[in-house]
Amino acid sequence: MTYTLVLLRHGESEWNAKNLFTGWVDVPLSEKGVEEARRGGQLLTDAGVTPDVLHTSLLRRAIMTANLALDAADRHWIPVKRNWRLNERHYGALQGKNKKETLDEYGNEQFMLWRRSYDTPPPEIELGSEFSQDQDPRYADAPVVRTECLKDVLERALPYWEGEIIPDLKAGKTVLVAAHGNSLRAIIKHLDGISDEDIAGLNVPTGIPLLYELDEDFTPVTPGGTYLDPEAAKDAIAAVANQGR
Amino acid sequence: MTYTLVLLRHGESEWNAKNLFTGWVDVPLSEKGVEEARRGGQLLTDAGVTPDVLHTSLLRRAIMTANLALDAADRHWIPVKRNWRLNERHYGALQGKNKKETLDEYGNEQFMLWRRSYDTPPPEIELGSEFSQDQDPRYADAPVVRTECLKDVLERALPYWEGEIIPDLKAGKTVLVAAHGNSLRAIIKHLDGISDEDIAGLNVPTGIPLLYELDEDFTPVTPGGTYLDPEAAKDAIAAVANQGR
Repeated sequence: MTYTLVLLRHGESEWNAKNLFTGWVDVPLSEKGVEEARRGGQLLTDAGVTPDVLHTSLLRRAIMTANLALDAADRHWIPVKRNWRLNERHYGALQGKNKKETLDEYGNEQFMLWRRSYDTPPPEIELGSEFSQDQDPRYADAPVVRTECLKDVLERALPYWEGEIIPDLKAGKTVLVAAHGNSLRAIIKHLDGISDEDIAGLNVPTGIPLLYELDEDFTPVTPGGTYLDPEAAKDAIAAVANQGR
Repeated sequence: MTYTLVLLRHGESEWNAKNLFTGWVDVPLSEKGVEEARRGGQLLTDAGVTPDVLHTSLLRRAIMTANLALDAADRHWIPVKRNWRLNERHYGALQGKNKKETLDEYGNEQFMLWRRSYDTPPPEIELGSEFSQDQDPRYADAPVVRTECLKDVLERALPYWEGEIIPDLKAGKTVLVAAHGNSLRAIIKHLDGISDEDIAGLNVPTGIPLLYELDEDFTPVTPGGTYLDPEAAKDAIAAVANQGR
């Protein structure tokens, strides 16, 4: 008896395409992202993976990716739960800024610290500013978030993992989590027991379902899981690592 | 203190465009239907109506309409509940048949009886046939349905209205129901106390949100509610009445 979990990072967004730090800014998928999402659904079908329940963040790039993928997989009708705890990392004052310009302005060391260190958050965003979400009604029940490091993401994602996702897995459901680079890295770090140092080297490609079979202790049967298109995943992981260059 | 309910019939589907009886067959929106859905979301925004929770059927034309409308209205992140009890009327053995050919074959009297009488269902569909849903996993928890009249739709929709929608209204939420011509007619019949005879004359246009303010007894403050685009609704209602001609 194993549990089946599928992680899906949203397809390319308009700001991925423009090389901007996005975080909690709610940008739509690009045309390419729409195609990636549909292809993700086709990969589910081809692999015979049939999600029974969907969990998403509150951001349209993850929501739309799930909608398109599930429609392609003829599973658009399954129950859905959404929560801010699956959101992308809040990028603080970097939200809305160009990655290349940030790299040039602050230098590679500071840039990589903000992007990849486990516990160094970017500077806090100014409340009420253009790219802050402190007035957004969808976060009325959430704490005000002004910046996050990956450790913060893990700490706010874990209660959702334990409280909402594990119970669905325990009920025997195939669970699809449609979320973001960093909220998925946080979940993967937890699942695979990756160290604070090693998680810096882990990238999640967009639009390629990552399948985990979990044993009764929710430990991955295959560490790292299995991408449903391993070749494309390898290429995409290399591309993500070079972002901002 | 009033409750706010919004009813939204899905945009044109590929089978509406082809003039086929659809029922529970899960066809996608047409290009026009996609545009109608987005415009429905714009109408919500223009009217300042902000749904807090969404209820849909299990059919992609309603699900996709809601997804597109809510994305256009920046409310894509609200909670969602789905249930077969909001499905379109099951059209029995007519599912997949051309409306015009059915009219020619059976004559106007029989045709109108199947389409508009309150309690005469079409012949039952053959189980296991191309357009039957008896093997569809999404209905695993529902009874096997082989045909329905509007009365049947009302009887299976009411428990959902009472058990799931009323509690959301009572909690002060603005409720969006994205569903179908006949499941919405059933709800409207119940809300407005329309007789078994008069309901035959009621048509619901596609893609135009119908706003109801309900008093504490869940009686409409304005009988019949208010379409968010009244002129377009008038034209569309006339067009629906002429379907199959």
